[in-house]
Amino acid sequence: MMTGEQYKESLKDGRYTYLDGKRVTDPANEPRLKAAVQAAADVYDSFHSDDPDEFNPIYIMPKSIEEFRERERLLAKGRGDMTLGTTGVILLTLVTAAPELAKLKPVYREAIYEYIAYARKNDLRCAESITDAKGHRKLRPSKQSDPDFYVHVVDRTSDGVYINGCKMHISGSSVGHEQVVLPTKAMRPGEEEYAIACAVPVNAPGVSVIDTTYAPYGEQDPRNFPVSGHRSSPEGFVIFDNVFVPNERIFLDGEVQQAAVLAHSLGLWERAAGVTHGGAGLEREVGLAALLAEANGVENEPHVKDALATLVIHSTMCKAAGEAAMANGQQNEDGILTPSPLYISALKYYKNEFHSKLLDILHDIAGTLTVNAPTFADFEHPDLHNGLEAMLATSTLSAEQRLRLFHYLRDTTADAYGGWSFATGQLSGGGQHAQRLVTMRHFDMQNAKSLARRVLEPAHGDEA
Amino acid sequence: MMTGEQYKESLKDGRYTYLDGKRVTDPANEPRLKAAVQAAADVYDSFHSDDPDEFNPIYIMPKSIEEFRERERLLAKGRGDMTLGTTGVILLTLVTAAPELAKLKPVYREAIYEYIAYARKNDLRCAESITDAKGHRKLRPSKQSDPDFYVHVVDRTSDGVYINGCKMHISGSSVGHEQVVLPTKAMRPGEEEYAIACAVPVNAPGVSVIDTTYAPYGEQDPRNFPVSGHRSSPEGFVIFDNVFVPNERIFLDGEVQQAAVLAHSLGLWERAAGVTHGGAGLEREVGLAALLAEANGVENEPHVKDALATLVIHSTMCKAAGEAAMANGQQNEDGILTPSPLYISALKYYKNEFHSKLLDILHDIAGTLTVNAPTFADFEHPDLHNGLEAMLATSTLSAEQRLRLFHYLRDTTADAYGGWSFATGQLSGGGQHAQRLVTMRHFDMQNAKSLARRVLEPAHGDEA
Amino acid sequence: MMTGEQYKESLKDGRYTYLDGKRVTDPANEPRLKAAVQAAADVYDSFHSDDPDEFNPIYIMPKSIEEFRERERLLAKGRGDMTLGTTGVILLTLVTAAPELAKLKPVYREAIYEYIAYARKNDLRCAESITDAKGHRKLRPSKQSDPDFYVHVVDRTSDGVYINGCKMHISGSSVGHEQVVLPTKAMRPGEEEYAIACAVPVNAPGVSVIDTTYAPYGEQDPRNFPVSGHRSSPEGFVIFDNVFVPNERIFLDGEVQQAAVLAHSLGLWERAAGVTHGGAGLEREVGLAALLAEANGVENEPHVKDALATLVIHSTMCKAAGEAAMANGQQNEDGILTPSPLYISALKYYKNEFHSKLLDILHDIAGTLTVNAPTFADFEHPDLHNGLEAMLATSTLSAEQRLRLFHYLRDTTADAYGGWSFATGQLSGGGQHAQRLVTMRHFDMQNAKSLARRVLEPAHGDEA
Amino acid sequence: MMTGEQYKESLKDGRYTYLDGKRVTDPANEPRLKAAVQAAADVYDSFHSDDPDEFNPIYIMPKSIEEFRERERLLAKGRGDMTLGTTGVILLTLVTAAPELAKLKPVYREAIYEYIAYARKNDLRCAESITDAKGHRKLRPSKQSDPDFYVHVVDRTSDGVYINGCKMHISGSSVGHEQVVLPTKAMRPGEEEYAIACAVPVNAPGVSVIDTTYAPYGEQDPRNFPVSGHRSSPEGFVIFDNVFVPNERIFLDGEVQQAAVLAHSLGLWERAAGVTHGGAGLEREVGLAALLAEANGVENEPHVKDALATLVIHSTMCKAAGEAAMANGQQNEDGILTPSPLYISALKYYKNEFHSKLLDILHDIAGTLTVNAPTFADFEHPDLHNGLEAMLATSTLSAEQRLRLFHYLRDTTADAYGGWSFATGQLSGGGQHAQRLVTMRHFDMQNAKSLARRVLEPAHGDEA
Repeated sequence: MMTGEQYKESLKDGRYTYLDGKRVTDPANEPRLKAAVQAAADVYDSFHSDDPDEFNPIYIMPKSIEEFRERERLLAKGRGDMTLGTTGVILLTLVTAAPELAKLKPVYREAIYEYIAYARKNDLRCAESITDAKGHRKLRPSKQSDPDFYVHVVDRTSDGVYINGCKMHISGSSVGHEQVVLPTKAMRPGEEEYAIACAVPVNAPGVSVIDTTYAPYGEQDPRNFPVSGHRSSPEGFVIFDNVFVPNERIFLDGEVQQAAVLAHSLGLWERAAGVTHGGAGLEREVGLAALLAEANGVENEPHVKDALATLVIHSTMCKAAGEAAMANGQQNEDGILTPSPLYISALKYYKNEFHSKLLDILHDIAGTLTVNAPTFADFEHPDLHNGLEAMLATSTLSAEQRLRLFHYLRDTTADAYGGWSFATGQLSGGGQHAQRLVTMRHFDMQNAKSLARRVLEPAHGDEA
Repeated sequence: MMTGEQYKESLKDGRYTYLDGKRVTDPANEPRLKAAVQAAADVYDSFHSDDPDEFNPIYIMPKSIEEFRERERLLAKGRGDMTLGTTGVILLTLVTAAPELAKLKPVYREAIYEYIAYARKNDLRCAESITDAKGHRKLRPSKQSDPDFYVHVVDRTSDGVYINGCKMHISGSSVGHEQVVLPTKAMRPGEEEYAIACAVPVNAPGVSVIDTTYAPYGEQDPRNFPVSGHRSSPEGFVIFDNVFVPNERIFLDGEVQQAAVLAHSLGLWERAAGVTHGGAGLEREVGLAALLAEANGVENEPHVKDALATLVIHSTMCKAAGEAAMANGQQNEDGILTPSPLYISALKYYKNEFHSKLLDILHDIAGTLTVNAPTFADFEHPDLHNGLEAMLATSTLSAEQRLRLFHYLRDTTADAYGGWSFATGQLSGGGQHAQRLVTMRHFDMQNAKSLARRVLEPAHGDEA
Repeated sequence: MMTGEQYKESLKDGRYTYLDGKRVTDPANEPRLKAAVQAAADVYDSFHSDDPDEFNPIYIMPKSIEEFRERERLLAKGRGDMTLGTTGVILLTLVTAAPELAKLKPVYREAIYEYIAYARKNDLRCAESITDAKGHRKLRPSKQSDPDFYVHVVDRTSDGVYINGCKMHISGSSVGHEQVVLPTKAMRPGEEEYAIACAVPVNAPGVSVIDTTYAPYGEQDPRNFPVSGHRSSPEGFVIFDNVFVPNERIFLDGEVQQAAVLAHSLGLWERAAGVTHGGAGLEREVGLAALLAEANGVENEPHVKDALATLVIHSTMCKAAGEAAMANGQQNEDGILTPSPLYISALKYYKNEFHSKLLDILHDIAGTLTVNAPTFADFEHPDLHNGLEAMLATSTLSAEQRLRLFHYLRDTTADAYGGWSFATGQLSGGGQHAQRLVTMRHFDMQNAKSLARRVLEPAHGDEA
Repeated sequence: MMTGEQYKESLKDGRYTYLDGKRVTDPANEPRLKAAVQAAADVYDSFHSDDPDEFNPIYIMPKSIEEFRERERLLAKGRGDMTLGTTGVILLTLVTAAPELAKLKPVYREAIYEYIAYARKNDLRCAESITDAKGHRKLRPSKQSDPDFYVHVVDRTSDGVYINGCKMHISGSSVGHEQVVLPTKAMRPGEEEYAIACAVPVNAPGVSVIDTTYAPYGEQDPRNFPVSGHRSSPEGFVIFDNVFVPNERIFLDGEVQQAAVLAHSLGLWERAAGVTHGGAGLEREVGLAALLAEANGVENEPHVKDALATLVIHSTMCKAAGEAAMANGQQNEDGILTPSPLYISALKYYKNEFHSKLLDILHDIAGTLTVNAPTFADFEHPDLHNGLEAMLATSTLSAEQRLRLFHYLRDTTADAYGGWSFATGQLSGGGQHAQRLVTMRHFDMQNAKSLARRVLEPAHGDEA
């Protein structure tokens, strides 16, 4: 297992990554990437062992609820590192789909398990590389004005294939080691070259990563950016320009009829990501609203109590659906446990549908201090400190605590990180329309209709 | 156990019940009550046994999820009889509260268990008698212009007490045998006379029941009223005028500090009523919407598919919460299992909040035929039959099936029974504000706040 | 102008109308139709004049907002008669479309104005006959298994045409004199026979009307059915079996390209119906909620005040949109004023979307007494009167007033009339999806996009 | 009238303003303030005239809808400057309240009009200084642990008064000239010292302003921050430490019974701010959504069309309410026109309630490119340009246009400015609960109840 320092060094591997118009060769020392690298390095250190047989629990593929829960417990200390999260999601995606892929060719399943063993042994972090540029959405991949709108095979040898194209919105590529590339959707006969799933190192020749990040510009006091100043994840456009992929890293190649199986699997695990640790309850957000109400002295106002009750009911319903998703989980042919896709997608939809209302409620309780809290530098300025301290302290919180609370709120809900977090939270695993389609796909409509068809019978009674 | 016929005879016990301005002495032969009586009689017959040790499973008080589920399974065939339902709810209410009441006086618990044994042995049906007339809502019971706005003890002897007052909206009194009377809310010192819980036969001297019912007027073709024509439940104003209650039927008498414990227990079981059989999923309603869409040939319209997805997500979330309520159930000191009040009240709120939208969606898919389907008499009229058959048949349903479907929809959502069902469904176990209060009472806000308080600490990181 | 008595006599014209499986030849004496007839007769009497030049203001086709408002003022006393309303809607529909139809053939406009003169002179009431049976919704009219799924011309002579088919959900046919028949939607070349608009007397040979009605069954105390006991409107399936229509009553015949113009015009006027008298504000419903809150003594509960505020905001937004619809009204080539279809359809959507929530709020405030108020017969029964009076009176309302209030609520929101009113109110002028389509059709999207396109320019600034 | 340059110089007046922990003495040259200053300077230049009788139209106090609209038209070119907006709102606030204040003391009205003449003559920009720190919300001002939680008079001479306290969230103080200080709410007898309204120059001795701003840190390419890079408004905590106010700048002093009249007037004008130019319609946002849909090639997806229809209906309802607010405007005793507070507050509530859903819809259509569009520097990097251009261009937009569109979306909805804009937009003029209270205050509930009371009468009929 790598130490944090070894991890930082491992990123200086000749990769072509870009940020704000410049190539970055040492992410650990790039101002707007270094917090992300440091967060990951801290997690490497926290899991590190010198025992060569040890490995990070992210590489455990659970086969029961108990294993699932135990893995979560072990991973709790790694939660601040997004690259660990993407690694878990993409590897679970692969093993979930493995039995279906094995039906096409047994070698696909073998390649998947060998790849996981390789990542585990080398303690590598992997990105989920799926969304294509897509060009004109209503045209099939092969009808686009530019064939590279979808990643595709452009050449092949006996050793492997060469791919071209662009994958967008890939979290953490620049601070990780590997990309797992999946077809973005179902393909049809004639689109065989687009039905390609494989793994590619970030520093493979021909790979370029163009990053964006919500990390604050300039040198900022982390107290004013309590979350985004400590951790962040670059999002990348990943361009593949004649990139070679050896046969042993290919998980699907040309079988159009199963091109969607990996996307469906990834969708499930992305949607499930928020559910797996301790249910999907939003207890912390409820508590945050309650603290804000106390900080403003309005915790007993009827309309504030009413707003808290709205949050509590929402949190409780989410928690219930998270529990149901696990309790109704399924095992695939290899024994890998997956949460119930029906409950997961219904929950994702329900949670997303309310999320903007949640922010509204937090801001309504918090008031304009949400965006106007003085910086810590102002707070500590000798001309201003006494005045601000007097004006900001409350009976339950010191002025400093109140500042922390409101900077946290701004950073996470009304500044660059908040905006990124909101938009990507709503869209990861598909937007709301996708959740509706997925829920419909997994709902037993035949059973529902047969329950209802009793009313068509001459004497049916009623059992509502 | 009684037969249906014995049950019908048992109602001719000299009771004072009224409907539409007339006293009713034989409910089984009263036009707008007889369907309710017949439905209950059918259920008596279906459970009947000559074995004197046998009893209806409604009298089982379950102590585990397994017992709970088994009881449900046994009761499935009794679902069309509302008096069976109220009997189950009120007896579970009593045993749930029994340990708390026993702390006041052990005799209360004994009275409860003896009463259940009595009801079981005699196969009696019991009503939930709780809501007082209340008068001016902002005044305490003892400050009302008329002391009878709340049921209260007006006299007492060594053998028992005499009570006065009025309980409103009591389902099924006129077609059952017993009333279990509970205080409607918490009481305070000085209000001891109002802290009275007890059981009273419907035919006890001094009891009058004034009924309303959604049963159709006149002699109706049950095909036009497929639900309300087969079953119904009279709702009663029950007036107690110096009614004697013997000591052995008293479950609380004067202990104001615990007056609310029975109301809370009843609220839980009323709210839980819809959850207990097979989860709270609305699969049948989803199926109904799908059938209506097919009946109108619009099942592939995008906005109809979208509406179905909305229903499916709602149904799935309800089902999840129903599962969570059972999985997180608790046992009281006597071992009696209760579903989790947190999940039950959140679910009730969520389900109710959507219910009017559910009706909107059904009507929007169904169109105006919801309220304008010709009667079966028109359909069978020789002048009209051929024309109607031609105009009503579809590729998936015969004209007769289509009529059945739309009459069912009208009867249950857009006619007298539909209106009653909607209003009482929303209000049973308390309105939406009550659900919010109950959810808040059972939510662990201290835990939520402690999760959130981490952001007040100097270096807190984030674990969202 | 007819008197009420003359009107009643006029309905005994040999028509073939049916209700509950029987032919009705004298609607004024048919138990479940006579209230509707009486309501219309009262309105005839209230407008009656012996002056042969006088006519009912419903036949005024307004050309300015002032004329519109004056017509409304004059019609206010006729509001309880639905046949008057349908007459107004259908005649406004014809004159609104007249200029477009005149472009096809000038004789269509002439026929329209002559028809209105005829109706005015004879004081006739007309029904809106539009919705076809439609059969399989995804098939064109000419591809249906039965050609009569859409009304169509089956034969023609030099004097006129013969039509076949069925129009559904036609309000008031059986208690009026005329049907104005319109194509239900756009037609295409090859469907000329379906592009037929015309007027047909209810008693024309070959016309049958099969009614449904929410009028209460049996002889009911009107105090228990305060609205539905006084007025009602039968809804009819109207079957046309080789019905002759003379040339002078034909408004469109075969011009498929304009078949939808009448449907669009009717849709506008149906949607507008609720807007025209005094804005679309729901002040009365707000007041009803406030009265119910007072009747239950909860008017100062925060959650009730909050619910009232929700209703007030909704009412105010509806009123604003109603005002905007008139202020942005347009005149057609003949000078006929129409309200703005953009505002009308947005308002209809907004109002409908909330309507079920409005009912929920009313019921939540009112409580279970909504459906369980004792009848007036019970209230007057000597055994019960004193007890009920004591239990029902409040500090602001007598027991009798409280009963009136709750029976009104039940009759209009939770009984047969309430169900009919809710479903048809939501669906008249098209369901919610139709409102969305209509709003989109009338919104100036090009202007909206040009406003937004500024952000595509190199230096655009911002004017939000 | 000042030129832009003169305006910049005018800010170097010895004021004590702070940003990010440092005192700022020349706002025009302070990195994160200079864009705000430049935007205001540009507006000064655009209105500049050498004629000493000319003045900016912001100082016109309109007395008719026509004057109102004309003033708007003249001000259109000044919309990018927030200080102009606050000046207009606060002066309209003063003249709206003037007649009520004159009833207390005629000199108050005189002081108001003299102050406006002074501002007009010197072309000054004024801030709205209202929200106090408030301390413990449930305690009255005089019961707070620190008397300065509310601005109050601490001393007085024959020439004026001295005030202490802190006003929070004051937009534009540091880049304007004057503060108009108003009591934040109603006061009671005994709180006379808190009932103080007056005008204070920003550079008055004892005034300190502590700013926050959403202006981007560092030197940013304005193409990546198309709105926030061009204009911004610092928000200030304004501390008053024994600040002298001369008598002629005092508009209220001690009359507790009218302390709220100015706050109500300000609330109205703040809420109205978004309504006055061209109605409150959100046509531009609708157009933005349509452009995004086209940019992603999804404009014909049913769920996208459905989302657009939702936006269109919302925009149309807002526009209607904006029109109704003006059409129902009122004049005060001095002839000053104010929009209808009833419609304004209902509209504000309705618009706010939907605003977070609007953002959700925009992001759902836009997808993850909302937050991940490459910067222009990346786009222009020679290694990346061709690849990005190929991947970003669509059939309707060039790659550069698409980047502009998505950076606009991010900057305004998912970055620092977006967060500030969302939170302050929801809270300006009071949060949602305040809108509800204000709407209730202006709704004619007596009329509503009298309309409903007809149902209490013996024979009422119905006029729904």
